[in-house]
Amino acid sequence: MTLAWRHLLRALYLETSTPRTPKACPSPKVGAFWTSVTKLGLHTKPSMPPCDFTPERYQSLAYNRVLEIHKQHLSPVLTAYFSEPLLLHQGHMEWLFDYEGNRYLDFFSGIVTVSVGHCHPKVNAVAQKQLGRLWHTSAVFFHPPIHEYAEKLSALLPEPVIFLMNSGSEANDLAMLMARAHSNNTDIISFRGAYHGCSPYTLGLTNVGFYKMELPSGMGCQSTMCPDVFCGPWGGSHCRDSPVQTIRKCSCAPDCCQAKDQYIEQFKDTLNTSVASIAGFFAEPIQGVNGVVQYPKGFLKEAFELVRERGGVCIADEVIKEENLQENSQEVGTYMLLKFAKLRDEFEIVGDVRGKGLMIGIEMVKDKTSRQPLPREEVNQIHQDCKRMGLLIGRGGTFSQTFRIAPSMCITKPEVDFAVEVFRSAVIQHMESQDK
Amino acid sequence: MTLAWRHLLRALYLETSTPRTPKACPSPKVGAFWTSVTKLGLHTKPSMPPCDFTPERYQSLAYNRVLEIHKQHLSPVLTAYFSEPLLLHQGHMEWLFDYEGNRYLDFFSGIVTVSVGHCHPKVNAVAQKQLGRLWHTSAVFFHPPIHEYAEKLSALLPEPVIFLMNSGSEANDLAMLMARAHSNNTDIISFRGAYHGCSPYTLGLTNVGFYKMELPSGMGCQSTMCPDVFCGPWGGSHCRDSPVQTIRKCSCAPDCCQAKDQYIEQFKDTLNTSVASIAGFFAEPIQGVNGVVQYPKGFLKEAFELVRERGGVCIADEVIKEENLQENSQEVGTYMLLKFAKLRDEFEIVGDVRGKGLMIGIEMVKDKTSRQPLPREEVNQIHQDCKRMGLLIGRGGTFSQTFRIAPSMCITKPEVDFAVEVFRSAVIQHMESQDK
Ligand SMILES: Cc1ncc(COP(=O)(O)O)c(C=O)c1O
Ligand SMILES: Cc1ncc(COP(=O)(O)O)c(C=O)c1O
Repeated sequence: MTLAWRHLLRALYLETSTPRTPKACPSPKVGAFWTSVTKLGLHTKPSMPPCDFTPERYQSLAYNRVLEIHKQHLSPVLTAYFSEPLLLHQGHMEWLFDYEGNRYLDFFSGIVTVSVGHCHPKVNAVAQKQLGRLWHTSAVFFHPPIHEYAEKLSALLPEPVIFLMNSGSEANDLAMLMARAHSNNTDIISFRGAYHGCSPYTLGLTNVGFYKMELPSGMGCQSTMCPDVFCGPWGGSHCRDSPVQTIRKCSCAPDCCQAKDQYIEQFKDTLNTSVASIAGFFAEPIQGVNGVVQYPKGFLKEAFELVRERGGVCIADEVIKEENLQENSQEVGTYMLLKFAKLRDEFEIVGDVRGKGLMIGIEMVKDKTSRQPLPREEVNQIHQDCKRMGLLIGRGGTFSQTFRIAPSMCITKPEVDFAVEVFRSAVIQHMESQDK
Repeated sequence: MTLAWRHLLRALYLETSTPRTPKACPSPKVGAFWTSVTKLGLHTKPSMPPCDFTPERYQSLAYNRVLEIHKQHLSPVLTAYFSEPLLLHQGHMEWLFDYEGNRYLDFFSGIVTVSVGHCHPKVNAVAQKQLGRLWHTSAVFFHPPIHEYAEKLSALLPEPVIFLMNSGSEANDLAMLMARAHSNNTDIISFRGAYHGCSPYTLGLTNVGFYKMELPSGMGCQSTMCPDVFCGPWGGSHCRDSPVQTIRKCSCAPDCCQAKDQYIEQFKDTLNTSVASIAGFFAEPIQGVNGVVQYPKGFLKEAFELVRERGGVCIADEVIKEENLQENSQEVGTYMLLKFAKLRDEFEIVGDVRGKGLMIGIEMVKDKTSRQPLPREEVNQIHQDCKRMGLLIGRGGTFSQTFRIAPSMCITKPEVDFAVEVFRSAVIQHMESQDK
């Protein structure tokens, strides 16, 4: 097998230094955009906040050799971002350094796993101590750090039984088994657009086409409509429990949400028609891989009740995450959300901005009326331009149309300002190039 | 849920210092044993080879607190060895230290995972460097240590494509999917007694009753007879590719193995009767969890041909293992195998000794004629006595009747001598207590 990405055309690498003359007259569709261009001063590259960490000298394989080895011996799965994959060398808190010493502000934290920051010195000190003490003894003997951790973690949860696993997929494998064993039922429901892992068993829960296999699988798993208030059939400007709402109109009375009611009807429909007896319902509180999708207020609570009434178990699938943020992160998170939300008002192609805590989604559309996804190559170009200016962000959504932002908890407001400026600049450059 | 082991009776804790008077007349069945007792000098505790490493002071939770937390908050799965689970504090190469500072020779290496030895200083140095450099970036960016490793590993394998996973179960999940996708078939065969993981998907392959779930699963998975030349219906004293053979008689001509032929007939029977179209056949080259079971010479080669003829893929499932041992380990391994094999000739209850490299199985039986498993409580007692004298070994087999030995590659001959002496002493003490 070969790496799919080696067949990809190398996308045009846009240099900010290349002079570009703005067209005198913009097309009506992108009217709002020109104002921005002139305000920004197009050829300025946003300047990066300082960082006092100096990376070591890179002494490993040459870039081309890495690509060769990847092609020859590593997984052919198409996962790397960018037509020229980024070769990272070192990390320090919110910063990443590539093999050439270029610095990047990391706003995706290893797909939301390194939330304390890269190579955090305090964590490293503890890890180094443990390395010198004991690596692994298997479950046939005890070793107290697991018990120390279980004690701390259990203080945060109601009546917990803790089982540490290697990955989210393994955890959900087990949760599926437990739901079935506990309820004595078989059927499990999850949302379309849900990502719960890509082990063969959790693939039954994951409803993102890209990950599905052409093999008989997912016995007893049923998908149901995702209550997506931006893209779905129902949704308005009061649905979300968030300071940022969709651009859709709303005619609901206070304390009522028609969208929620409509989506609940669909959920009931699945329960009544496609499920014999329910073992469990899996849901991410906010969908991550599907592009940070938020449901209408109260939806999950009502759905959970419907499932429990029928003897099923409800599993909230959250990654390492936003609920227990320190106050500072909460504050910076909201600051960031509101700043990105302004870009939605400024640009026609920024269709929706949403999220909670440090987890933000920016859905790119052809235009706000149709809410159709911006074509993938165009989103790629903006993504690549952000990287070029020193900002790393993630992707999600059925058509890869949504940018995902999940920085580590140590970010600061000046870093958020920089990120917003870079993103804005990339959108402007994209629109300019479309306009040519 | 509660921890099952808290309901277990605390097994009697035998002290070597307690004087015991040997009976004047042994029962005929244990005739061979008395000779040994007098030779050994019963109340001597074998003396442990020296170790110049001093563990840190234990400063974590008290023993009882660990048990409490385990009961309250950790997995209720019954996995810990011994009625009083061993609380480990630190490791250094082949040595482990418990919370009270007691030292143990580790002959199980974290269920065959820490084969270089605990906290190996060279590995630690590399790990510490990496901790300071980068923890995790996910598969959307590249980081060269993976490529450096892939290059080295691929030099050892024919045309490899390397995919690094979190666990053996995850690797076999993927191997099952790939076999099915590649062959366009569904059915997968594995041996009875096989352990290939306990994720919900690999549970279809794993045929060890203890791990099976009372849930519909294992779609398309078929088990077939394990060609076990000690316990199975066929087997003799020339079947194995090993310096140590079973105690069973053999009437085969040179260059022929009737046991192998009989087991191949059974394998064909499964292929002809229970499989529509074969996707793959999974086998451990030597079964680990089932108690280091070795098949007759030539069996796997012939079975692989039968599967490949029918369009299936063959998967040899080996853990971190014995094939690439350095010469020293090979030499010490054979030395160890032959020394333990002598105990089989000495004791009626040591039914079989087998293995390869540093992986050894010692199957305990009621007597050599019936080859019936020694009752679990008796095996437990021997296991516990070994621990008390400072030797940690593992368990396996359908009735947990087999001791598993898999020390790290750094062990020496004096350490092997100590281990054999401890094991012999524990068997003698067991027989004496039975005899009372
Ligand atoms: C909500 C959710 N569940 C499960 C997983 C799977 O985790 P892992 O990749 O560790 O198997 C992910 C990974 O992104 C996830 O976002
Ligand atoms: C042969 C074999 N395959 C697979 C596994 C499963 O590995 P893991 O426990 O890492 O999932 C094991 C574990 O003992 C094993 O012995």
